[in-house]
Amino acid sequence: MTDWLAVDWGTSHLRVWAMSRNGAVLTRRANDAGMGGLTRDGFEPALLDLAGDLLATGETPVVVCGMAGSRQGWAEAKYIATPCTPPGIDRATRVTTTDPRLSVHILPGVKQTSPADVVRGEETQIAGFLALNQKFDGVICLPGTHTKWVHISAGEIVSFRTFMTGEMFALLSQKSVLRHTVAGDGWDAAIFADAVSSGMSNPAELAARLFSIRAEGLLNDLHADQARARLSGLLIGAELAAARPYWLGQHVALIGDDTLCKAYADALGAQGLPVERTDAERMTLEGLKAAYAGLKETTQ
Amino acid sequence: MTDWLAVDWGTSHLRVWAMSRNGAVLTRRANDAGMGGLTRDGFEPALLDLAGDLLATGETPVVVCGMAGSRQGWAEAKYIATPCTPPGIDRATRVTTTDPRLSVHILPGVKQTSPADVVRGEETQIAGFLALNQKFDGVICLPGTHTKWVHISAGEIVSFRTFMTGEMFALLSQKSVLRHTVAGDGWDAAIFADAVSSGMSNPAELAARLFSIRAEGLLNDLHADQARARLSGLLIGAELAAARPYWLGQHVALIGDDTLCKAYADALGAQGLPVERTDAERMTLEGLKAAYAGLKETTQ
Repeated sequence: MTDWLAVDWGTSHLRVWAMSRNGAVLTRRANDAGMGGLTRDGFEPALLDLAGDLLATGETPVVVCGMAGSRQGWAEAKYIATPCTPPGIDRATRVTTTDPRLSVHILPGVKQTSPADVVRGEETQIAGFLALNQKFDGVICLPGTHTKWVHISAGEIVSFRTFMTGEMFALLSQKSVLRHTVAGDGWDAAIFADAVSSGMSNPAELAARLFSIRAEGLLNDLHADQARARLSGLLIGAELAAARPYWLGQHVALIGDDTLCKAYADALGAQGLPVERTDAERMTLEGLKAAYAGLKETTQ
Repeated sequence: MTDWLAVDWGTSHLRVWAMSRNGAVLTRRANDAGMGGLTRDGFEPALLDLAGDLLATGETPVVVCGMAGSRQGWAEAKYIATPCTPPGIDRATRVTTTDPRLSVHILPGVKQTSPADVVRGEETQIAGFLALNQKFDGVICLPGTHTKWVHISAGEIVSFRTFMTGEMFALLSQKSVLRHTVAGDGWDAAIFADAVSSGMSNPAELAARLFSIRAEGLLNDLHADQARARLSGLLIGAELAAARPYWLGQHVALIGDDTLCKAYADALGAQGLPVERTDAERMTLEGLKAAYAGLKETTQ
């Protein structure tokens, strides 16, 4: 029987785990009812639609992380300022629901004043990673649409920096003049490594080297796999140049999509850096479990 | 009576000038029948649709520059390799037309082997500028979707470099997470100047500073005008850092959209660089006129 629901509610996805009293996953469900396509009134029906039949007869705690807590989400869960531990259930926003079976807690994101930065969702993955690696001191990199570099010390998020690298790759590969040149989803590891190195050593040239991909397609029949790997490598290389203060001489853990983390691991590995790879979805779930444990402590 | 037609046929526009025997503009017409929306069979009808009634009864020379000469255009006009003078009518591609009144010449673009780069359309603006400034030695910058920096010496295009800055600005301001933060078309000159300086001094940080615009919108209510000026400044600053070998200590002439050229003039002016601004459409027309003059010489 469902003891509580763990919910990861992002811009483009909704994931729900029905959890047993002893912390086991009874059921996992997911759909694309992300925050991006919902108005405020749409969240409760969307959750009931995906997981209503999993609720127990009484009141079921629902612990939510991600964009559902943004200003345009279900209810705003305000950012907690760094330095801070990943925010727990005591900082969560409660939501009044129509269905009396739901007892919703939305976890807040984390903000940084200077440079101005925000994170929402990844803080729960960080909480999960720290729950599993309690002595961890170092850097967590969360590759994605907006890649996060996070400095962790003594269990706290000390500072972080977000790079729009993933979104720039998506826009350039799908919407720009490069879209024909980089078509498909092929890859060339040697070209990628070379482009990372080139992007790191001269990040200013990014906008020119991007156009060169197009020109090499026209003049030298550059293969789409090579073009795509070069585009990715130039962008990640420029990011690594700027993120050097984060990773240099550090222990780096990667949390994110497997394919993307492989690319970051290759790029950082070429810099002689040992990296640790993790299961991103597991980190999210462990973070939500850690938050729920806080709820049990409060109510006991 | 129309002596010849000057045609600027880009990806998203078609411009036609009916020219008199003494080089005066009789009529100017334009629409959005750009190369991007046409198949090969569509070019002749599109030209006749816009300007068919301007043709004389005999055969009318039509001199075309721009993307109509690309591989996906009306007929391919192959790139000429640098170093070269802007290609004249003797390098143009002839097109067989159904309508016997048309005698079409499409001017080629220019290519560079290393770094791989191409230009198509702007070479005619350069020809126009050089026709009006025959002793010019220096650098021409053509801001646009794909900004070109062109080194001119002794009437030749020695080398050039294309930056995707304009397309990146368009994608980031219209399609990315920044689109709400930078909404509108406002401007803040002081923020722009500051962002150019910041982009120049640390271009690697681009992807992170871009996300900071979003974060400052969320945390500090950054005004949309300021956000938009900062986005533009960071991108142009990074470009200026990489283009420094082109502009440092040089005489720079700008050819392009007025608003964009104003931004480049401000950014370069802050570096103590005198810049010359020009009328972009006039440069195109003068370039087409210079090409037509070559045709007259050939046929006389």
